[in-house]
Parts: sequence; structure tokens; C-alpha cells
Amino acid sequence: MERVSAIIRHLTFEAQSAASSAQSGAAAGGPLASYRAKSSFQPETMRRYLDGRFYEFKKAMYATLLQDPLFRLPIAELELSRKDARHQAIRLMRRVIEYQFVTEADLEQDPMIALIVSNLLTSFDVSLAPKLFLSCGMFAQCLVNMGTERHLKYLPMIATLEIVGCFALTELAHGSNVRAMMTTATYDRTTREFVLHSPSYLATKWWVGLLGQTANYAVVFARLIIGDKDHGLHPFLVPIRTMSDHMPFPGVTVGDLGSKLGQNSLDNGFVAFNQYRIPRESLLNRLADVTPEGEYVSQFSNADRLFGATLAPLSGGRVSIVGLALTNLRSALAISVRYSAARKQFSPSDNVEELPVIEYQLQQYRLMPYVAACYALDRFYVWLSGHHFSQLQSARSGPVDPALVAEMHALSSAGKAVAGWITRDAIQTSRECCGGHGYSTCNRLGVLRDDNDPNLTYEGDNNVLIQQTSKFLMTSLRNVMTGKPVKSPLGSVAFLEQFSTLIGSKWAVESEGDLLKPAVLLHAMHYRTAYLLQEAGTKLQSIMESGKDVDTFSAWNQTQVHYLHAAAKAYLEAVIVAQFDAAIQSCPTVSLRGVLSKLLALFALWRLEGDIAVLREDDFITGQQAKLLKETVLALCLQVKDEAVSLVDAVAPPDQILFSPIGRSDGEVYKNLYNTVTTTPGCFERAPWWAEMHPPVEKGSKRAVFDSYLKAASSSH
Amino acid sequence: MERVSAIIRHLTFEAQSAASSAQSGAAAGGPLASYRAKSSFQPETMRRYLDGRFYEFKKAMYATLLQDPLFRLPIAELELSRKDARHQAIRLMRRVIEYQFVTEADLEQDPMIALIVSNLLTSFDVSLAPKLFLSCGMFAQCLVNMGTERHLKYLPMIATLEIVGCFALTELAHGSNVRAMMTTATYDRTTREFVLHSPSYLATKWWVGLLGQTANYAVVFARLIIGDKDHGLHPFLVPIRTMSDHMPFPGVTVGDLGSKLGQNSLDNGFVAFNQYRIPRESLLNRLADVTPEGEYVSQFSNADRLFGATLAPLSGGRVSIVGLALTNLRSALAISVRYSAARKQFSPSDNVEELPVIEYQLQQYRLMPYVAACYALDRFYVWLSGHHFSQLQSARSGPVDPALVAEMHALSSAGKAVAGWITRDAIQTSRECCGGHGYSTCNRLGVLRDDNDPNLTYEGDNNVLIQQTSKFLMTSLRNVMTGKPVKSPLGSVAFLEQFSTLIGSKWAVESEGDLLKPAVLLHAMHYRTAYLLQEAGTKLQSIMESGKDVDTFSAWNQTQVHYLHAAAKAYLEAVIVAQFDAAIQSCPTVSLRGVLSKLLALFALWRLEGDIAVLREDDFITGQQAKLLKETVLALCLQVKDEAVSLVDAVAPPDQILFSPIGRSDGEVYKNLYNTVTTTPGCFERAPWWAEMHPPVEKGSKRAVFDSYLKAASSSH
Ligand SMILES: Cc1cc2nc3c(=O)[nH]c(=O)nc-3n(C[C@H](O)[C@H](O)[C@H](O)COP(=O)(O)OP(=O)(O)OC[C@H]3O[C@@H](n4cnc5c(N)ncnc54)[C@H](O)[C@@H]3O)c2cc1C
Ligand SMILES: Cc1cc2nc3c(=O)[nH]c(=O)nc-3n(C[C@H](O)[C@H](O)[C@H](O)COP(=O)(O)OP(=O)(O)OC[C@H]3O[C@@H](n4cnc5c(N)ncnc54)[C@H](O)[C@@H]3O)c2cc1C
Repeated sequence: MERVSAIIRHLTFEAQSAASSAQSGAAAGGPLASYRAKSSFQPETMRRYLDGRFYEFKKAMYATLLQDPLFRLPIAELELSRKDARHQAIRLMRRVIEYQFVTEADLEQDPMIALIVSNLLTSFDVSLAPKLFLSCGMFAQCLVNMGTERHLKYLPMIATLEIVGCFALTELAHGSNVRAMMTTATYDRTTREFVLHSPSYLATKWWVGLLGQTANYAVVFARLIIGDKDHGLHPFLVPIRTMSDHMPFPGVTVGDLGSKLGQNSLDNGFVAFNQYRIPRESLLNRLADVTPEGEYVSQFSNADRLFGATLAPLSGGRVSIVGLALTNLRSALAISVRYSAARKQFSPSDNVEELPVIEYQLQQYRLMPYVAACYALDRFYVWLSGHHFSQLQSARSGPVDPALVAEMHALSSAGKAVAGWITRDAIQTSRECCGGHGYSTCNRLGVLRDDNDPNLTYEGDNNVLIQQTSKFLMTSLRNVMTGKPVKSPLGSVAFLEQFSTLIGSKWAVESEGDLLKPAVLLHAMHYRTAYLLQEAGTKLQSIMESGKDVDTFSAWNQTQVHYLHAAAKAYLEAVIVAQFDAAIQSCPTVSLRGVLSKLLALFALWRLEGDIAVLREDDFITGQQAKLLKETVLALCLQVKDEAVSLVDAVAPPDQILFSPIGRSDGEVYKNLYNTVTTTPGCFERAPWWAEMHPPVEKGSKRAVFDSYLKAASSSH
Repeated sequence: MERVSAIIRHLTFEAQSAASSAQSGAAAGGPLASYRAKSSFQPETMRRYLDGRFYEFKKAMYATLLQDPLFRLPIAELELSRKDARHQAIRLMRRVIEYQFVTEADLEQDPMIALIVSNLLTSFDVSLAPKLFLSCGMFAQCLVNMGTERHLKYLPMIATLEIVGCFALTELAHGSNVRAMMTTATYDRTTREFVLHSPSYLATKWWVGLLGQTANYAVVFARLIIGDKDHGLHPFLVPIRTMSDHMPFPGVTVGDLGSKLGQNSLDNGFVAFNQYRIPRESLLNRLADVTPEGEYVSQFSNADRLFGATLAPLSGGRVSIVGLALTNLRSALAISVRYSAARKQFSPSDNVEELPVIEYQLQQYRLMPYVAACYALDRFYVWLSGHHFSQLQSARSGPVDPALVAEMHALSSAGKAVAGWITRDAIQTSRECCGGHGYSTCNRLGVLRDDNDPNLTYEGDNNVLIQQTSKFLMTSLRNVMTGKPVKSPLGSVAFLEQFSTLIGSKWAVESEGDLLKPAVLLHAMHYRTAYLLQEAGTKLQSIMESGKDVDTFSAWNQTQVHYLHAAAKAYLEAVIVAQFDAAIQSCPTVSLRGVLSKLLALFALWRLEGDIAVLREDDFITGQQAKLLKETVLALCLQVKDEAVSLVDAVAPPDQILFSPIGRSDGEVYKNLYNTVTTTPGCFERAPWWAEMHPPVEKGSKRAVFDSYLKAASSSH
């Protein structure tokens, strides 16, 4: 052993001295310095612009985490067992509350700060924010928004983690189809209680975050039954485990879902009820109530409407997922872009230095559009969340314009889906762009992939969710067609007012220069949406007219792939571009506008490129323009390449939070990786099972077993 | 606890009884019976056709594994620590050797059987086959093909695992650019030894499979230095760890790479040499040798050629990766298709039963093309591996036609890339198509994703590798252009003989019926390849002519994205379709041809659909045809949907090997999942850290820390 460690010391020493000299060939400042020198702006200037009023706050919050040994390593990197990872998560949750980064007063003044905290914690460990958010955010909001005075008393205990609550809607057999949930809450007049019951194991509440081992309370959605009348789903505040010994109450079967693809420090669980009695006051009764005598009282005539209104305050979940995805996107790109600029492979000819792989067109084309997307999504997210909070604000002082609610719903649904998809693809591409080293856990791309993955599923499966946006768009189109005004308080569907002009228009693009003009880009993006909607309408109609058996449901489903789904995506991408454009125009730091404009053009053209076939269907663009579009995407990738390191510098978390040897800002990828690997405990350990490698295997000693099966198989032939 | 388990028993009982009755609504035979009844063929008939001469062999091999308790659970599912997972892997490796599924005589007669065994083991656990293959396959083959008589003595010890060997080419700083490896082997005339040395930590051999803890030998590639002449990379057989105590030899620093995104029971490692002496006989000297006196003797005048010839026998690695990817693809689709047919969500109207999600057009479009790809790739793989082995066979009796070598190289390079990409996307889509339940580790899609992932990287990064195919195609095109014959012993580029006719042609498609004709499909696929090659040629030329500074290297790189890369993919897809077509035409079971033809059309049209823009660039297809193409893809998805369950039945491994509750062949997704989750150890365990959830957190008790940073940040502003 001593011998080995001597050698290691020798090599590690070499690693340290070599890294900063020969290999990189770069000037002082490390392997990334040359790219940083090429960029048109200072990353810190960009960061200040992007973070805006939260610039100092984020800085201080990062500094706080960095001085705390508990935050030295993200949970997923500790290689802990699931059990220990959860233990660590509890410690982290408690610590975050101890810091109290935001006070109630802060939140009151600027609710967006909650998202800032959540995203910042996510950049450290993806499952930490949801873990806190599920109880202190979602669960608490249920009490506030669905409950009444009597439910508010729990809030202080939630804030101090004495009560940990969860949100139990999904069942084993039902997720997307919310209306089909089977759990019942039958009112018992005599005892003035509800009897919660799972009529079958299929009704077991499933997937509930924090329920596996942590939560002691849940908001459970169950069908409210009085006598023989089923009033549909209602929310109930349900004690699950005792406060004294954390064991489930009688009548409650609660358990853990076990290992997931990611987010394993967050415990998802299931619960079934066996005639479990809870007091009448457990009903979260803001919108509907049951009198002690068992009379049902509701502002809504229709159970579906009531349910919709009940869930409405939770729409913030989708907005916040855009932020979580974006946070993951930033980390992934910080890693892959820096590595691509530092990793050299192949040289044009002998005796010429190798090129950083970011210099290859293919690598640029694989990564740069995501860098653009990262910036475009960020400005969209700031805009969307701003409107989300002001909508919540207005809701306090009176009813909100239903048109605004509908538009926000459409935007957050498609926004969540599109942000999730882009991030999914960017992470996978990043992993592949880092070659072999991308497959090492320590470099963090795997964790990002696994932890980001459920963003596509929870808070609504993306492919189901985006249909809400399609519905909104079809309604908007119908308004246009029937001469009614387009209702668009946020302006996202205002372009439909020019529907017929758009549909008949052609793209006015003659040179690459035209392709950089936001108005020209938006024209194409709006045309694409309008065209797809028109086609969707035509298709829907032709299916409906094709036979008597066809109902709206199946006509709708048969119009999904190329029309409704495509239109909703196109719509959202157009909104992203429009908002990015608006942000750039009002960007106070004029020197940043140049690079931001390139990112806008790259993002828009990249998304249009995938739909050239659609744009050509009705000759909106010519073949020549299509070629120009493709060439311009490549040209922009090449330009953005020189800005890319600074662009990711401006959005990356600090090195000790990003925690990726090949993604560190110093670009010393080999030194960092080498030192990380060689100092990992166990690195030089002799396999404890080494002796079991001997004696030599008796080759074929069990062959008789196989032979007998072979005989049987052949004779049965 | 007793109370809890009573409830569980109650619920589990319900689960068992309920599952086979009410919920599914299906007739006896479970939730999948109705789809099975709709299909046009018997899965077992299909399996017999697909497995061909290996049908009985595979049956017997599965039966053998199933009776063995060691194979009760795939390693990745055991939730073992990395240490224990590797221990388990050693046991499994030894056991496989004990069964000796193939004898030397079997292999001699039909070498393909090695791939059958490897794929079958992969269906059980993805990292098991590589683990065995790296030593018993790749390492052994290095000795056989690169070494001479004196190296063969190790073979028996390799076969019994006494010697475990690995393949060490990649270094920390170099992977794809093989020529830049830095490890040196300097010949010392006086002692007649080579001195292996890592001149810098950057030269550390990295990523080497089995080297982390298992291997005692390695084939190391190092630059052979005699005097001051560098003869380039040569392979050496190098002892790494002693046979007696499994400790590294002095001068050898060997360690473990730690956790990877997947394949964690396989230990990847690194090794650096410090003036480590090995005997002259260690050089694997088939193609080049050093005499005792230090004279260098080689059949090759050029180091690069020599290196190419040295590695040539290993091209089988890429062929076998096609098989590994295909195996993963089959498992993923078995899970997602069965689940989609069993999972019901939403109904057209109240009181109507919910629809299986496979009935939704979107779900069909997301999954069915991959089902088609799975069959298309399978026939391509059988064809490719057949030719691979006959090429190896001919190599024994004399030199092989260089044109054949070149064509095989192009096919296996692009084949590996395309199979890897399709499988990557199919697994991710499968995970998403299973909604929330797809995110449970027990359902196995995560393991498949993580374990399949490196197929994109090792044996050549896909995006680098496929450039080999581009080169081959450009050479073929040049031959055509200069009036030379197209050299294509396997016929894959024979279509280039009609290059100019193809380029000028139009697609003869008037109706959906035309789109089902293989000749029509192949016409489009060949046109696409030819067109992209032509464009690539034009582009290359125009770049070369554009300025004096431009070298071939950078012209090549600037022609990647839309041309060279795209052409290589298009070429390979055309080969897949051509081989699938040939297979169908000679399929002995005539009743299967119908469904196979649909799969062929779906695969081909789906791949063309993504390139409609390209096909329209020069008006090969009209806008009308483009629309028809898109509609036909959807129509075929709808048709294949009714065959899909049987199609995956025919390729899925047995349930106990697939090991996915929602993917089991009985389709009892809820019962299986419920029982798996509730019987997982720890499911009902109270969190060991529950007491740490109390006392209530002192909210804000550490706020002062944050405040101080906040103050600092704001004042520095
Ligand atoms: C990590 C994680 C945490 C979660 N946390 C919670 C929680 O705290 N509380 C809670 O209540 N739930 C939670 N969930 C559950 C989650 O909300 C659901 O999984 C989600 O809503 C998706 O529903 P599903 O699983 O039923 O998907 P399904 O609807 O079954 O989807 C399966 C497939 O069918 C497709 N599909 C379904 N309907 C249609 C249609 N009409 N048209 C086209 N395609 C269709 C989908 O696109 C998908 O491909 C969590 C899930 C996960 C993975
Ligand atoms: C699980 C695993 C097991 C392995 N096992 C072994 C083993 O047993 N023995 C062994 O010797 N090695 C092994 N390897 C190493 C493996 O062979 C290399 O990782 C692989 O060849 C890729 O090379 P790289 O990592 O250098 O990628 P790089 O070449 O560094 O690629 C990084 C990025 O640059 C891009 N790029 C590079 N060059 C170009 C170009 N010219 N044009 C366009 N783009 C370019 C790539 O596409 C990629 O996106 C293993 C790797 C893994 C992940």
C-alpha cells in the first residue's frame, strides 16, 4: 500500500504541475481563457442583467451555502444508500429553514423570490427544492387556497417542519384522468365524520411526494359521498402518521415506492384507507362545504367546474417547473460547453495543435442552439412568472378576468412541456458531447438527466398537458373565424387577429441579414402557428363529417400529431421569441443586446428549421429560403461558439455547487477529473472479493443442466 | 407492525382477486388478450422465424438461467452497493462459464452463437455480457489476432477466468484521436525489455473496462520507441496485478474510475506506468516485431496503416454493439407497448369504459415507429453479423478483398451509430410513454437507459465514427464521378451506379398504396443518399475553392451537419430497408410477410418523414406526396397498433428475465406493480431518522449568516 501511495503522490504532483502549463497551450488563465477573451461581453455584466433585482440576493444565498459544510456535496453525489440520502435530505431541509432566506414580508413584497430560492437550491441538488416545496409550498397553499380560517392554524407548524404535508391526488390506476379517481369520503351524519375509503387496491394513492417516509399529513382528493350522491372530488386534510411516534394511524396503510430513476432523496409513497374516519372539519371547504347535518353547499353547479376551480391556485406548479428545468439546463450546458472548449481532439495536420472539440461544426450544431434556448427560456420564464404572481395578486382583490386565467393556463401548460423537452434533449446531448468523461457520475450529467426526467411527467404528463394549450388555441381560432374578438390579455394570441393575412403571406427574406430581424422571425413563427391551427381545424372538421360514429373525442385524438400538438408547440415557441425580443429591446445594458440578438435569431431559426417541411407545404417559404435558413443556423452556431464560454459563465452556479470536475470554470478538466477520481475512497482498494476470482472456474461443470434443456427444446420441435 | 401487515394482507388479497376480474374488462387471458386476438400472427411463429437456427438454443439457455437462483434478479435491480454489485457480477461470470453454453466446436461451426449468448445475457443484465466479453472475447482476440504462437498459451487461463484481461487504448486526454496517445514503450537492448512509461498524468490509460478491480492483465497500446525513433502505437501484453495477491506490480498505478451513469457492476479503471519493465516477448508481434538486437521489423511502411491493420480484427465490437442495442430496444418496447395496451386513461364519454392509451394517435406515433425499427434493425443485424463472420472466416485462408473490408467498416460504423441512436430515443420515449410508473426503478426503463447509454460512446463516439462511413461514401461517389466502378461486394452502394439517373428522378407515388411498395420506398431512400452526397461534394468543393487557407480537414468539418453526417445516416437507413426487404421476400413463413411488410413501410416512411425538407429541396417529391407520406405514417401506426402486443411478445425475453412489473406478459400491470412495491424490503419501515424531524426547526436561527452576506453583496454593488 505504501508503495502505491508513493506512486500516487508522484502522479498527483505531476497532475498539478502539468495542468497549468504544457497541455493547455493557453495563456495564463487556463484553457478557457482564449474563448473568454473572444467574447463580446463580461459574464458578470450579463449575470447582473439576467438576475436583475435578485443579483445580490443570489450572491448572498450562494455564499451562505458555500460556507456551510452540510452543502459541501450534493446528495446524489454522496453515493449514499437511499436510506442515508433521505436522512441527509432532512438535515438539509432543516438547515434551509434555519437560514430563512425569505421572510413572510419579503414574500409579500415580491413573491418571485420563492422561485429564486427554489431554483438556487435546485442548482445544488435537484430533489431538495421539490422536497421543501411540496410541504411548505404546495401543501400549505392547499390549506390557504382551498381551506378556510380553521385550516390556517397549521401553517406555523408547516413552516417549522413539525407538520410535513403532501399532496395526494394520483392513484395507482389513474393519473392524467383526474376525474376517474376512486377514493371515497362518505359523510357520516351520526358522528359528523367523513369515512375515507379505498374501494380497491387500484384506488391506492400513488406517487405522492414525501409520503413514503416523511409526511405526517396529506391533502387527499376523494369523491365526496353523501347518502347515495357522489359530489365528485374534494380535498381533505388527513392525518397520516402520529406526531408522537410517526407510525400510521389505524385504517391507514402507507408505504414507500422504493427506488426511482432519480430524486431518490425525496420519498414518494402510497396510501390506502380502510374506513378511516376524519372529522367533518377536515374538508377543505372554501369552495364547497358539508353542513353538520349533511347538507352539501357549493358555489358551483357542476362537479368538474368545482374541481377545476379547486386546483386553479396550484397552476404555479407548472410555472415553477419551467424554472427547475431551466436551472438544470444551465448546469448541463455549463458542463458541456466548458468541456467542449477545453477538450482537444484531432488536429488539421501533424505538428499542429489539436482543436478544441467546440471548433467542430457538428459539436457546435449539437450545443449552441441549446445555449440560445437557455437564454430565450430564461426571459420567457421571467415574464411568465411575473404574470403568474400578478394574477395571484389580483385574485386577492376580486375575480380575475377569465380570459387571463385561460391564457395563463395555456402558457404555463405548453411552457412547462416545451421547457421540459428542451432540457431533456440538452442534457442528453451534453452527456454525449462530453464523450467518455460524460459517462462518469462525478461529472454530474447523469444526475441532471435522472433528476430532471420527471419534469416531463408530474404536474401533468407533457403530452396530455399540452392539449390544454391546443384547446385554448382552437377556441381562439374559433373566435376569429366567427368574427369575435381574440381574447388575449397577455397578447400571446393577438397575432390571430391577422389570421387571414398571415395565412396568405409569404416570407420576405432575401439575405442572411433578413433572417436576423426579429420581426421577420416572428412573422414566420406566427405564420407557422396560424397555418397549423388552420390545418387542425380543417382536419377536425373533415373527420367529424366523415362518418356518423365519430365523436369529438376521437376526432380530437386523430388530429393530434401533426396538427394540434404541433400547433401548441409552435405557439409557445413564438411566445418565447416574442418575449425574448421584448426583453432585448428593453435591456438596459446596451452592450449585451448584440449577443442576445444572435441568440434570439439562433433559437428562432433552429425551431423553424425543424419545420421547414411545414413552412413549405403552402409555399410560405421557397426552397431557396429554406437553404438560407439552414446555412444561417450554422453561421450563427459558429458565431455563438466564441461567446459560448462566457454565456455559460454568466448563468452557471459556482463551481462548488455545480460540482463537476470537467465543468469547473477553470477549465482544467484533466487535473480536476484526475484528482477527483484518485481521491475517491475505494479508488485504490483491492476488490474485497478478489480471492473469489480463484480457483479457476471449472469450465462446463454445469453444462449438463443446459444440455438437458437443449435436448428438451429440440425434441419438442 | 402486526396491524399494518394485517392491512397489507387484506389489500394484497384484494389486489390478487381484483386484477383478474373487474378492472381490465378483458376476457380471460388478462388485459392484453384482446390485442393478442387482433393480431395477424402467433408470436411464437414469429419468434421461431426471427431466432431461426438459434430458436431451441435460446429457449434452452433461458430455461437454464431461469432454474438458477443466481439469475433470479438482474444485478442492477438488487439495489446493491457498487462493491456488492461487482461481487455479484463475478459470481455470475463464473456461473456462465460453468454452464459453457458454447464449446469451441460450436463456435468453430457457427461463430454467430457467441453473439446469441452475449445478447441473451444482456437481456438479463446489460453489464454482464460486456464484462465477460471484454476478457474472454476482446482481450483473447487481441492475443489471437495481434500476437503469435507464444501468446496463445494464455488462452486456456482466460477461458477459466484465471486470467482476466482488458483492453487499454484510451487515455485521460485522448479517446477518439487514437494517434495522439502518449504512453511509451521504449526498447532496452541491454535487458531485452520494453520500458512502459506514462510521460504525464494525461497519458494515464482511462476508462478501461475490468481494469478498476478485476483484471490482472491488459493489452496496452503504447508508442514503440527504439533509440530515438517513434514507431507509433503497438499492442503489448502487460501484467497488471499479481496472480498471488491481486496487488499491482511495482511501477504500475492502477485504480478504479468509481461510479458511472450505468453498468456499475462493470469496473472501469485507469493505469499509469512508471518505467515499468516487461519482456520483449510482451509485444503482440503478428504485424510488427522487434528483434532481440532492437531491430524493428514490420510488413507496413507506415505507422498509421499498421495501426489500422492491428485494430481491424476488432471491428466485431461494433457489430456486437448493434446486437446489444437491439436487445435493449426489445426490452424497452416490450415494457412500453404492453403497458400502453393495459393502461387505460380517459373515455370518450361518461359511462363508457376508458381507452387503453395505445389507442391515442399520439401514443401510437411515439411508439409504433420504434416497433418497426426493432424488426428492421434485427434483420439488418442478422445480415451484418453474418457477413462479419464470413469475412473473418475468409481472412483465415488468405487476404480479404479490401473493398469488402472497406464496405464492412462503413456498415458497422454507421450501423453501430444508428442502432445506438434509435435505441436511445426508444428507451426515453418508452419511459415517458409509461407516465409516472415509467419513473419507478423496478419497471426497468431507467436501468435500460443508463446501461445502453455508453453504446453511443465506446468503440468509437457515434458522431466521430459515422464520419468513417461518410469517407467511404465520398470515395464511392468519386469513383462514380470518375467513371470507375463502384466497389461494393455487399451491394450497399451499388445504387450509386445509377447516380445521375437517381439525382434527376422524381418519386412515382400517387396513392397510399404506392407508399407500401418496397421498391418505391427504396427509390426514395437511395435518392436521398445520392442527393445528400451530391450536395456534400458540391459543398466540399466550394469551400475548398473559396480561399487559400482552407485545408481538407476544415472543409470536411464544415460539410458535416447537413451533408456528410446526414448522408451516412441516410445510407445506413437505406441498407436497413433493403435488407429487411430481402429478408421478407425470403421469409419461409408466408403468413408473417404481411405484418413484416407493414413494419418495413412504417420504418422507411418514418425515416423519410424527418427528411421531407431534403426530399423537396430539388423537387424529388411534391407537396402533395409529402402530405400523403405523413398521413400514411399515421395510418400504418394505427394498423401496427393492433399487432404491437404480439410483435413485442415475439421478441421479449421471458418475464423473469425482463423483470418489469408493468412489462410482464400477463398485462396485470397494477397487480404486479402493487405486489412488487409492497413486498420490497423497507416499504413499510418507519424512517430510521424520524426522530430527527423533531423538535420543530428554529426558523431563522441561522439567518444572521445570510444577512451578513446580503449586506456584503449589496454594499459591494
Ligand atoms: C417523481 C414523481 C412525483 C410525483 N408526485 C406526485 C404527488 O406528489 N402527488 C400526486 O398526486 N401525484 C404525483 N405524481 C403523479 C403524476 O402527477 C402523474 O404521474 C402524472 O400526472 C402523469 O399521469 P400518469 O402517470 O397517469 O400518466 P398516464 O396518463 O397514464 O400516461 C401514460 C401515457 O399515456 C399518454 N396519454 C394519456 N392520456 C392521453 C391522451 N388523452 N392523449 C394522448 N396520450 C395520452 C401519456 O402521454 C403517456 O405517454 C408524481 C409522479 C412522479 C413521476
Ligand atoms: C463505459 C465506457 C467503457 C469504455 N471502455 C473502454 C475500454 O475498455 N478500453 C478503452 O481503451 N477505452 C474504453 N472507453 C473509452 C471510449 O472508447 C472513448 O470514450 C470513446 O472512444 C470516445 O472518445 P472520447 O471520450 O475521447 O470522446 P471525444 O473524442 O473527446 O469526444 C468529445 C466530443 O467531441 C466530439 N468530436 C470529437 N472529435 C470530433 C470530430 N473530428 N468531429 C466532430 N466532433 C468531434 C465528439 O462527437 C464528442 O461529442 C470506454 C468508455 C466508456 C464510456
